[in-house]
Amino acid sequence: MLNWDDETKSQAQPAADSSVAPVNADDKRVINGETDVNQLAPFKYPWAWEFFMNANKNHWTPLDVNMSQDVHDYHHRLNPAEKHVFENVLAYLTTSDILAMRNIGLAVMEKMTAPELQIYQARQVYEEAMHTWAYQHCIETLNLDQSEIYNRYRVVPQINAKIQMANRRLDAAMRPDINLRNKDDLQEFIMSYLFFAGVFEGCWFYNGFSPIFALQRRGLMRGTGEQLQYILRDEAMHFAFGLKVVNQILEEENISLDPKAVREMWDESEAVEKDYADYILRDPILGYSAEYHTEQFRFVANRRARTVGLEDPFPGAKNVSPWLEEQATMRKEKNFFETRVIEYQTGAQLEW
Amino acid sequence: MLNWDDETKSQAQPAADSSVAPVNADDKRVINGETDVNQLAPFKYPWAWEFFMNANKNHWTPLDVNMSQDVHDYHHRLNPAEKHVFENVLAYLTTSDILAMRNIGLAVMEKMTAPELQIYQARQVYEEAMHTWAYQHCIETLNLDQSEIYNRYRVVPQINAKIQMANRRLDAAMRPDINLRNKDDLQEFIMSYLFFAGVFEGCWFYNGFSPIFALQRRGLMRGTGEQLQYILRDEAMHFAFGLKVVNQILEEENISLDPKAVREMWDESEAVEKDYADYILRDPILGYSAEYHTEQFRFVANRRARTVGLEDPFPGAKNVSPWLEEQATMRKEKNFFETRVIEYQTGAQLEW
Ligand SMILES: [Fe+2]
Ligand SMILES: [Fe+2]
Ligand SMILES: [Fe+2]
Ligand SMILES: [Fe+2]
Repeated sequence: MLNWDDETKSQAQPAADSSVAPVNADDKRVINGETDVNQLAPFKYPWAWEFFMNANKNHWTPLDVNMSQDVHDYHHRLNPAEKHVFENVLAYLTTSDILAMRNIGLAVMEKMTAPELQIYQARQVYEEAMHTWAYQHCIETLNLDQSEIYNRYRVVPQINAKIQMANRRLDAAMRPDINLRNKDDLQEFIMSYLFFAGVFEGCWFYNGFSPIFALQRRGLMRGTGEQLQYILRDEAMHFAFGLKVVNQILEEENISLDPKAVREMWDESEAVEKDYADYILRDPILGYSAEYHTEQFRFVANRRARTVGLEDPFPGAKNVSPWLEEQATMRKEKNFFETRVIEYQTGAQLEW
Repeated sequence: MLNWDDETKSQAQPAADSSVAPVNADDKRVINGETDVNQLAPFKYPWAWEFFMNANKNHWTPLDVNMSQDVHDYHHRLNPAEKHVFENVLAYLTTSDILAMRNIGLAVMEKMTAPELQIYQARQVYEEAMHTWAYQHCIETLNLDQSEIYNRYRVVPQINAKIQMANRRLDAAMRPDINLRNKDDLQEFIMSYLFFAGVFEGCWFYNGFSPIFALQRRGLMRGTGEQLQYILRDEAMHFAFGLKVVNQILEEENISLDPKAVREMWDESEAVEKDYADYILRDPILGYSAEYHTEQFRFVANRRARTVGLEDPFPGAKNVSPWLEEQATMRKEKNFFETRVIEYQTGAQLEW
């Protein structure tokens, strides 16, 4: 039988004591903090609470989007090259968003020692689940073979390589004996966090919907395109929050990023992204290409790097998809709430 | 430098292989499963997906509730005994819901090996964060001393004892070396899960809003009462889901609950609940009493016990607050969506 006091690092407070002082906001830290994690306020990071409030303003569900035209488009208007793009991007996204959920929920949130950070991450975990719902909703609506789509990342090497890179970082952050007071472990964790916020969400997700947006811009698969716009809007907050946390950790822990590790991260993430783009866009489609996709990855990567005080990893990369930023912001004012209840009832008729 | 293959239990799949078969739903398990956790469908637990869909239908935010009358009530209509009840229940809830969030997000979700379960839990983690927001919104609106309220559980022994009991269970479930293929660890985990779903959420939360509902029923603090009704509605889903998962684990792992451990759990949870009720209701208020509170705890505990096939821990306990069940369901049809956008703008003016 487990002896609580000896064998676990107890999170219980000592017995009640009328002299115990409230938390001092200045003592809070992102990681390695020693203030009581059960007390939300006073806030040290009011920006985290604002992220939470703003994320709630962006509330949407996949059932808010009309998908009926997509069914027609998919079966009657997409050519084989376009179907190849659509299905493989969707397959990549399904796996990626489950992974994103597990990264925040299981690897990151537990290490935060200020509750206001965990609160936003709780919202983020939920948003990743909503994204998974959105893909599932597309799969069901279009009547795709769901098992085949979900399994595709294990079959297609160019999708697999991206997921493998992310899984390696996730494994590192989830290692049961990781100790963030140990300098090597801390460096490993910060690289994992930087990868997920800066590359996985900030570049791969941010630019990852673009092949489908290219269809949407030609009037094809517009329902799916709209779903992905809401997801993009969420992801734009996720990477902004994540990079802010990275900066805060660097400052509080008085460490800096290892330039060699950073360079390797950019090189590897570019290489697998290029292979992926070459695969999904192996046959030409109108208005978009593998070269576009990879160049935009490089352009976006430069911006993420600057956010955490790093040099441009890909100097001179061009903003070849200037419409992308607009996709993340154009719908901010849309109000779903009036139609939601009716749409939910539609959704309830979905079959398993 | 960490060697990925040797030193971590890699979650990465082997290199892509066109012969790798999709997941078979029958192979999925709640815990200790070996199917790919990155593939949502095919579902083995469609009820978990339905919980997720239904939870999304219940969407609300604290800003949807008009709190203006509460400010007047708190400062001009509550007597000292009623203020004592109100503040201490609120203080208990603030700590409890952060703990609830950490339990699901950090201790439970990681152990689930079927993604459809994690998806609902992602929603639950977010709902716990919303509950924290609701309390924070009440604290700000009523202009209470937030540091004092959040710290109170460390100062008041009768609140502290409940939190200590929960923290002990959380510590057990979060032990880094816990191994659910080990029979003792599995028993420990199932008791922790049963405690959080059956006692912490199913009894303490479920019956925990009642002292404030008693004020609400007399026309006092009705805004807060309404907030707590939405929280109660969420909690009713949380414990129902949790107890369903407990039943599923018992069946899949072919184990049963240890009657002695269960008896101890009920006895301890009743003892600390009684002390807590005696403290918050030490001075009489109209229409509610410590005896009522504790008796209703016993009545509710019997129902939770039956849900997982256990005997009534408190035979003959009476349903002394028959209005409680109605509180969880009466607002199901209310539609917030029409007013939400305007109310959000009000919320944006809150001060830190
Ligand atoms: Fe996502
Ligand atoms: Fe994300
Ligand atoms: Fe809660
Ligand atoms: Fe809960």
